[in-house]
Amino acid sequence: MIALLKKKRLIHLLSGIMLAGFLFCTHVQAEDVVAEVAEAAAEVADYAAFMATPDAAYFTISNLWILISAALVFIMHLGFSCVETGLTQSKNTVNILFKNLFIVCIGAVGYMYWGFNAMYPGEFNGIFAFGSPIANGFSGADHVASMTSAYANYTYWSDFIFQAMFAATAATIVSGAVAERIKLASFMVYATILVTFLYPVTGSWEWGKGWLNGGLGSVFGAEFIDFAGSSLVHAFGGFSALAAVMILGPRKGKYLPGGGIKPILGHSMPLVAIGVFILFLGWFGFNGGSVLSADPESVSRVFVTTAMAAFGGGLGAMFMSWILVKKPDLSMGLNGVLAGLVGITAGAGAIPPHQSVLVGLIAGVIVVIAVIFFDKIKIDDPVGAISVHGICGIFGTIAVGIFGSEELAGEPISFMTQLVGTLSVSLFAFTTSFIVFYLVKLVMGVRVAEEEEFGGLDVGEHGQEAYPDFGPRSH
Amino acid sequence: MIALLKKKRLIHLLSGIMLAGFLFCTHVQAEDVVAEVAEAAAEVADYAAFMATPDAAYFTISNLWILISAALVFIMHLGFSCVETGLTQSKNTVNILFKNLFIVCIGAVGYMYWGFNAMYPGEFNGIFAFGSPIANGFSGADHVASMTSAYANYTYWSDFIFQAMFAATAATIVSGAVAERIKLASFMVYATILVTFLYPVTGSWEWGKGWLNGGLGSVFGAEFIDFAGSSLVHAFGGFSALAAVMILGPRKGKYLPGGGIKPILGHSMPLVAIGVFILFLGWFGFNGGSVLSADPESVSRVFVTTAMAAFGGGLGAMFMSWILVKKPDLSMGLNGVLAGLVGITAGAGAIPPHQSVLVGLIAGVIVVIAVIFFDKIKIDDPVGAISVHGICGIFGTIAVGIFGSEELAGEPISFMTQLVGTLSVSLFAFTTSFIVFYLVKLVMGVRVAEEEEFGGLDVGEHGQEAYPDFGPRSH
Amino acid sequence: MIALLKKKRLIHLLSGIMLAGFLFCTHVQAEDVVAEVAEAAAEVADYAAFMATPDAAYFTISNLWILISAALVFIMHLGFSCVETGLTQSKNTVNILFKNLFIVCIGAVGYMYWGFNAMYPGEFNGIFAFGSPIANGFSGADHVASMTSAYANYTYWSDFIFQAMFAATAATIVSGAVAERIKLASFMVYATILVTFLYPVTGSWEWGKGWLNGGLGSVFGAEFIDFAGSSLVHAFGGFSALAAVMILGPRKGKYLPGGGIKPILGHSMPLVAIGVFILFLGWFGFNGGSVLSADPESVSRVFVTTAMAAFGGGLGAMFMSWILVKKPDLSMGLNGVLAGLVGITAGAGAIPPHQSVLVGLIAGVIVVIAVIFFDKIKIDDPVGAISVHGICGIFGTIAVGIFGSEELAGEPISFMTQLVGTLSVSLFAFTTSFIVFYLVKLVMGVRVAEEEEFGGLDVGEHGQEAYPDFGPRSH
Repeated sequence: MIALLKKKRLIHLLSGIMLAGFLFCTHVQAEDVVAEVAEAAAEVADYAAFMATPDAAYFTISNLWILISAALVFIMHLGFSCVETGLTQSKNTVNILFKNLFIVCIGAVGYMYWGFNAMYPGEFNGIFAFGSPIANGFSGADHVASMTSAYANYTYWSDFIFQAMFAATAATIVSGAVAERIKLASFMVYATILVTFLYPVTGSWEWGKGWLNGGLGSVFGAEFIDFAGSSLVHAFGGFSALAAVMILGPRKGKYLPGGGIKPILGHSMPLVAIGVFILFLGWFGFNGGSVLSADPESVSRVFVTTAMAAFGGGLGAMFMSWILVKKPDLSMGLNGVLAGLVGITAGAGAIPPHQSVLVGLIAGVIVVIAVIFFDKIKIDDPVGAISVHGICGIFGTIAVGIFGSEELAGEPISFMTQLVGTLSVSLFAFTTSFIVFYLVKLVMGVRVAEEEEFGGLDVGEHGQEAYPDFGPRSH
Repeated sequence: MIALLKKKRLIHLLSGIMLAGFLFCTHVQAEDVVAEVAEAAAEVADYAAFMATPDAAYFTISNLWILISAALVFIMHLGFSCVETGLTQSKNTVNILFKNLFIVCIGAVGYMYWGFNAMYPGEFNGIFAFGSPIANGFSGADHVASMTSAYANYTYWSDFIFQAMFAATAATIVSGAVAERIKLASFMVYATILVTFLYPVTGSWEWGKGWLNGGLGSVFGAEFIDFAGSSLVHAFGGFSALAAVMILGPRKGKYLPGGGIKPILGHSMPLVAIGVFILFLGWFGFNGGSVLSADPESVSRVFVTTAMAAFGGGLGAMFMSWILVKKPDLSMGLNGVLAGLVGITAGAGAIPPHQSVLVGLIAGVIVVIAVIFFDKIKIDDPVGAISVHGICGIFGTIAVGIFGSEELAGEPISFMTQLVGTLSVSLFAFTTSFIVFYLVKLVMGVRVAEEEEFGGLDVGEHGQEAYPDFGPRSH
Repeated sequence: MIALLKKKRLIHLLSGIMLAGFLFCTHVQAEDVVAEVAEAAAEVADYAAFMATPDAAYFTISNLWILISAALVFIMHLGFSCVETGLTQSKNTVNILFKNLFIVCIGAVGYMYWGFNAMYPGEFNGIFAFGSPIANGFSGADHVASMTSAYANYTYWSDFIFQAMFAATAATIVSGAVAERIKLASFMVYATILVTFLYPVTGSWEWGKGWLNGGLGSVFGAEFIDFAGSSLVHAFGGFSALAAVMILGPRKGKYLPGGGIKPILGHSMPLVAIGVFILFLGWFGFNGGSVLSADPESVSRVFVTTAMAAFGGGLGAMFMSWILVKKPDLSMGLNGVLAGLVGITAGAGAIPPHQSVLVGLIAGVIVVIAVIFFDKIKIDDPVGAISVHGICGIFGTIAVGIFGSEELAGEPISFMTQLVGTLSVSLFAFTTSFIVFYLVKLVMGVRVAEEEEFGGLDVGEHGQEAYPDFGPRSH
């Protein structure tokens, strides 16, 4: 009854926030409408003039590539959903899918109303910037002006939607690690805060030209390089997850009193495989789109480094698991592909193709060891998210300092900068995630009741089953 | 026995029609072959000349984007298949997949031999045009000439394949609503007529420059705006489905004698989620390709409005279902995403980004209410297709009249035109679908026997099971 | 115990080979590093100069299209995985997914270190070329020079990654045919040899300007035309599979002593449908990318011929199965779509759109007959790979000689060349596959023990189950 009341209060709170956002927005528009129309008319003329120049074709191609990349990053959310669902029990399937659907929806909306402008604040103190809603006019402030400049190869809208698709990723990574025992409403509050308010902070440090990308250079002789987010997205998500899992505790029955570990098996390996292949596909946009233009040399090379690291990661994990656990383990092989992808994400533009196979291979080996290690120390992560995204995210960022070519990167590379950068991001993620999740625990509780955990969260939280036609196995 | 005979007759009939089409086609070619070769040689020269002009690059990009969009719309048919399969019982899975596969095949072939030229007839009386096979020569009549004109940004072939992928959508929408009790052969005949002969009629009213797009303007001061088909595709499909469901009747056991409603549960929520995410992905091509060029400003903005409406729709439906049915309902959330997408389809080019979130949110709320409403009045729609595509299709079209910006649309907007347009299309769809389906009922019957319905259409119609390895749950 | 030892030895062997490759590579790099840096600096300047010319836009678009095509071909490996998994029993699911994951990983790595340069050797004796690792420098040997020439529309990296995604396809085709009874380690060795060393040989005959594409013309007046690989990829895979299946023998219990055939049913029709739709999607890149530029006329037409052949194939197989086995068979319909796609792959650029429907339709009819035929002669192919890829691959290549237009192809067409070409490729594939697989049989054995076959390879080879939550049906 109290839980229900809490849920109701939560719904009212969230509905209220959204409504307020819309009203605020409409209000602002009403006031500015006259100025905006005049500005837009001028922009239409400017735009038409620009599209008649020889630069328009290259701009159009690059912009299209950013949009296609946004679509590819979007479909990664299906990949995450499939991986997380497949690696957990069938009785928690509806819950996991609901969580992931919610995260991508609220993540993008939160990014629209706060995160984008907090992450790319323009003039910036280097540490923290307030967010605000994105533009709503014809074409966004100054976007035609920026088009004609040398560095802008896409519109304001393309920039926003590409980044918005990235934003929800961090919270989705957490989703898998806390699966099968977290309270739905608590996760929703925690994940909303994580993706809307915390993710843009570390993002702004690097991509918003903050202290990692306009300060550290004066200390170590090179700015931080994190091409598409081994640290900013993956290590961020992985170490946020670690904090949440530490507070949440393991699933009941996983770690036995005598010290034994009872494996809790995932329920559908085809779902896991579908998820990993879709994530791989999406990564062509994740890394390839991070070139931020359609420059043939760079995008082509990034495709090669990305794919070859993934293949290397798969091989590394397949053979490592075969050696360590004496069986060719499919889920390890699939996680190895993801490990390779996470590992190359920081250096996709700086690490040469042959070295990228090696980076992937090492990441694939690391992920197998990390998964076994976390299980040993009773950090219960049902999908291996902390190992794949956290550990391999840090490794990938450091790998730029080891295998990266300054010529390919087009700038100096410092091992120390890479180390300081990735540890800073991971530490920030871990600490703030810990604080927020702890507060959520105090206010609403974070864990479902034991009988709900055994019966499954699908029935407990949603009153729905994922597979009502199929009978359970009698064990 | 009689049923078998009927099926045999049907097969012969259909085979005969196809063969006749091919022979007719070959015949025509044989006659025109000399003229065609000469024309083609001239076109090769023209084409080479055009590709050497500065316009060629922009043309090439735009054309490529239309093709990629065609591929994205194609994959929506997988999305529909997954959603419809997941939301129905496992015993009807083979049947649903077969129906959807057939529809996309016959839909495209029918569009090639009749629909495309019926929908884009060139000179036109505004109401109805006869179809004919598409061109088969080197490059299509006058296609080089049209390339060099200001408005054509794609080849004849790109135009055809993009529109062909749209065509089957309408019948696929019906497929879900009539699932689990319709006779296979009857559905095949009905759907073939719907997609080949009826869909191009309303299509031609707007996109073929018929009375909605070259007539209504003189009455209400603005032509009808249906950017990518909230009315022409979705409301058309939804109201065709409503007519078919009314004739077909509900599934046995769904509406109890005492007035109660027994929910008949879908058998795989991951399939539904996979389907919705794939549909969302495909919608970037459905709406983004409907810009009909790679114009950076328009395509980028359409990506934003499309995605943000979908996210808004998901949130609207998740919270609305939580409030109305007291449970955070996953299938409602997923249908909410589709509702948001259908809702923004008419106005993706005219509704500003912030308002598009609102349009999606409202569509998400509407779809929950509509699903509950249709269940109350005993319209049995297993997948919610009438609500998602029919009701939200009408809402989306009207939303252009409420939230649309004339500046973004580049033309005047009239609420009355939007209302008249969407109701005309929906009424035409409902009426003609009713007549055709009623005739099919008279000639071949439309409903499987009661024992087949209970045993499942997979065994009954196909002699095949979808999941022979898994045991059913003992209820 | 011995099996375990053999596996261990295998792992050590494979690990050793990989390590040696990396060391060799690093070694070579160390030597050449000074020269490379100088060359790269010159290339950076050349590249910048080229990107300022008017040709840069068209080059950028074409290059982007090759990359997007590579991503589309990549996702076909998910399609294959889903089709093969769905059409086999649930107890062998982990094994099939593992095999397919391994193949795509080792296939791409092998192609990087040997296959690419063996398939495109430059100066060439026409029959066989040694392979070597791809470049690792800034941009690949001479790639800027080649960009500015008339025929190169993509970078060195794009060329490699597009072709690498093709490479693993051949072995994946075999994977399905030998499923449910092949030893994992034996398959891994065989498939690695097939994809790394054998596939590039026939590939070089045509695409590497070998004897099929620079010799046969002097005999029959026309060079061999295999646009995207009906022969080089599909017939190659299909006839390799035939040899392997002949050595391996049928699954236990499939062919009864009295001459009867016991169907062994696949376990998930939705997986099969997902796989086929994804393969269809990927084929837009497989065929569309094989234009090797974004030329609007060619790419658009290839999209139309590819899609319409697939739709024709679906219809052909649906109706043919309805006539022959008296039931509208879903798996036949789905295989018909693949048959249509394989059938048009050789002639996608040369066969006009209307004839492509016919080619698909015939392929759809052929595949149904072929599947029944191979079952009759006790060639046990669980997924129909030999029929789909082998038989329809040959048909598709010959179809160019029947339905192809010399004007569209832009070169003469000879029926005899097509026949000789496809038979040569198929015969080479069959023979070498037979020899290699026979040797593998002698050294390590190729078939799992009978009790493992009955218990399933998932538990037997991997100690893992694909669906531990779902109970088996009690037959």
